[in-house]
Amino acid sequence: MTKLVAVDALCGFVANALEAQGVPSEDAASVAELMVEADIYGYRTHGVFRLRQYLARLNGGGCNPTPTVCVVQETVATGLIDGDNGLGHLAMSAARDLAIKKANDVGIGWVGVRGGNHAGPLALYVRPQAENGLLGMAAAVGSANHVPPFGGSDLLIGTNPIAFSAPAEGPDPFIFDMATTVAAMGKIKTLIQQGEPMPEGWMVGKDGQPLTDPTRKSEGFLLPIGGPKGFGLSVAIGMLAGVLNGAAFGSDVIDFTSDTTSKTNTGQFVMALNPAAFGLGDDFGHEAARIFAEMRASEPLPGHDPVRLPGDGKTAAAAEVRSTGVTLKPALRRDLDLLADEYGFAAL
Amino acid sequence: MTKLVAVDALCGFVANALEAQGVPSEDAASVAELMVEADIYGYRTHGVFRLRQYLARLNGGGCNPTPTVCVVQETVATGLIDGDNGLGHLAMSAARDLAIKKANDVGIGWVGVRGGNHAGPLALYVRPQAENGLLGMAAAVGSANHVPPFGGSDLLIGTNPIAFSAPAEGPDPFIFDMATTVAAMGKIKTLIQQGEPMPEGWMVGKDGQPLTDPTRKSEGFLLPIGGPKGFGLSVAIGMLAGVLNGAAFGSDVIDFTSDTTSKTNTGQFVMALNPAAFGLGDDFGHEAARIFAEMRASEPLPGHDPVRLPGDGKTAAAAEVRSTGVTLKPALRRDLDLLADEYGFAAL
Repeated sequence: MTKLVAVDALCGFVANALEAQGVPSEDAASVAELMVEADIYGYRTHGVFRLRQYLARLNGGGCNPTPTVCVVQETVATGLIDGDNGLGHLAMSAARDLAIKKANDVGIGWVGVRGGNHAGPLALYVRPQAENGLLGMAAAVGSANHVPPFGGSDLLIGTNPIAFSAPAEGPDPFIFDMATTVAAMGKIKTLIQQGEPMPEGWMVGKDGQPLTDPTRKSEGFLLPIGGPKGFGLSVAIGMLAGVLNGAAFGSDVIDFTSDTTSKTNTGQFVMALNPAAFGLGDDFGHEAARIFAEMRASEPLPGHDPVRLPGDGKTAAAAEVRSTGVTLKPALRRDLDLLADEYGFAAL
Repeated sequence: MTKLVAVDALCGFVANALEAQGVPSEDAASVAELMVEADIYGYRTHGVFRLRQYLARLNGGGCNPTPTVCVVQETVATGLIDGDNGLGHLAMSAARDLAIKKANDVGIGWVGVRGGNHAGPLALYVRPQAENGLLGMAAAVGSANHVPPFGGSDLLIGTNPIAFSAPAEGPDPFIFDMATTVAAMGKIKTLIQQGEPMPEGWMVGKDGQPLTDPTRKSEGFLLPIGGPKGFGLSVAIGMLAGVLNGAAFGSDVIDFTSDTTSKTNTGQFVMALNPAAFGLGDDFGHEAARIFAEMRASEPLPGHDPVRLPGDGKTAAAAEVRSTGVTLKPALRRDLDLLADEYGFAAL
């Protein structure tokens, strides 16, 4: 059982799996490509690893295999896309492309999504901006509530991620994608697999005391970065990605990992900004690269590696994976084989 | 020596002080009103407290008393304002007003500023959006570098604040204004006045160890919220508020508290988004209020006060101050008297 899988083979496998759930071949190929791209760029918890969840929701009726993704509101600079409860990648890639088009036309494009679903890492929806000389931003209402409002004890907020990108001369654009919590749920699941405790500060229990046993995660809460600051930031994201788009935020959010039958009405947005509208062309990437070089040259603090900017090294690492194949961890490889067996499509 | 000063009297005092440095009366009145508004809304470290700095920079030639603030780039949805090195409030209030106009026209307005200066709290430039049914966002490259890149040891980044706002039915809109560092420099200065230590996590020394003596702040670095996350966020703000506008970021940033003679070329941006462009009118404020009510009703964690949303209580508190006057701490009141004496304008 090889662990290294060629990119084309992995895309074909994922597309087959989605088609077996009734997803039309063109959509299946698009989503498969984005899911594999997440692995190619190292977002392991948000790529092919999620196939089991997506199949369960397609199979359970929670996600629409044959959506009509359409623009329901539009100005020259803004748009609102209804994902028709299809796989989230479809609405988000449409939003990204529309935002880029508008940024090229009038300097900025801001496109919201409602009726979406989990769409993988936000980096997928901001990297193309930076690769085409634009700045990008995207955010999402998290697909499950793991966080209480600051000082409270009811799970009303998700990990609400936000991402930014900017072009820079040299191999790597600036690509920054973060959850607004100290830890993402994916990292905690990894610690469970490895049998290791969580550091203090990742979660607290309902008693407000630190929770460090990752197997007890359902008894506690994820903590926002910077305490009340991360709370405020995640509410701001809820306003911009959720409420503004008529999507779910607060108690209306469905836990998409446990619920395979309900429409989630996930909300997201994607933005693109054009330096040309600010009087800059390639100058932006030149100046960004100059500042990033200053930062990388900063003497490391004792015990720290050299300074890296978010996105550094990803271009070369992705090219390497594209040429040699995606390394699947044994547990994931086994799960993909099981899925093929359970749902009756061709194994890798 | 009374500590309670009527709003009109305080505005007049500040305007006089600025006029004595050659600021035209209309500009002086506008800036004075915004500086006092910061105090009215409780942003004490960013209001009249900053008068000494502003006067020093006007007097030293670092800040232009007679700027021509103008729009140098524009599309239907974006703009770039050159503040001509005047008081920062002038360029930022122009950016805010232009962003709001564009949001009313085409759904969104994103306006950058270059050639700006310290402009008080960002909340001043997002509250009007929320009070007029729009969502707001603003950010700034901090006016001094107190933070190294994550893992590094050179001061290349400021506290780079970011703010968001949204309308909500009821007394208070959502108004959230944060520095991307765990602590703002203003809070550390307050601890010095009070003779108290800093909590661990606010600063580290050049040895990478926690620094808790606030009087040794110049020997260490402020820490970003969430470690590398706050670093990434502050770089993203540097791209959007600085580089995109042709403003300073990185080693070009001048410490405006110690340098009274150099142009800072401060960069900021203000954004406004119109729910009507997303098919929502007053529905936005209704839905936001419903979700905020859920959050406020969440059972507090042991030892915590009831949950509050950012902005809660500010409307009533501001109305109270407007009617009774601004309470000036004795140290600030003394400083204002000293300033009147030093620069030769009418004392309070």
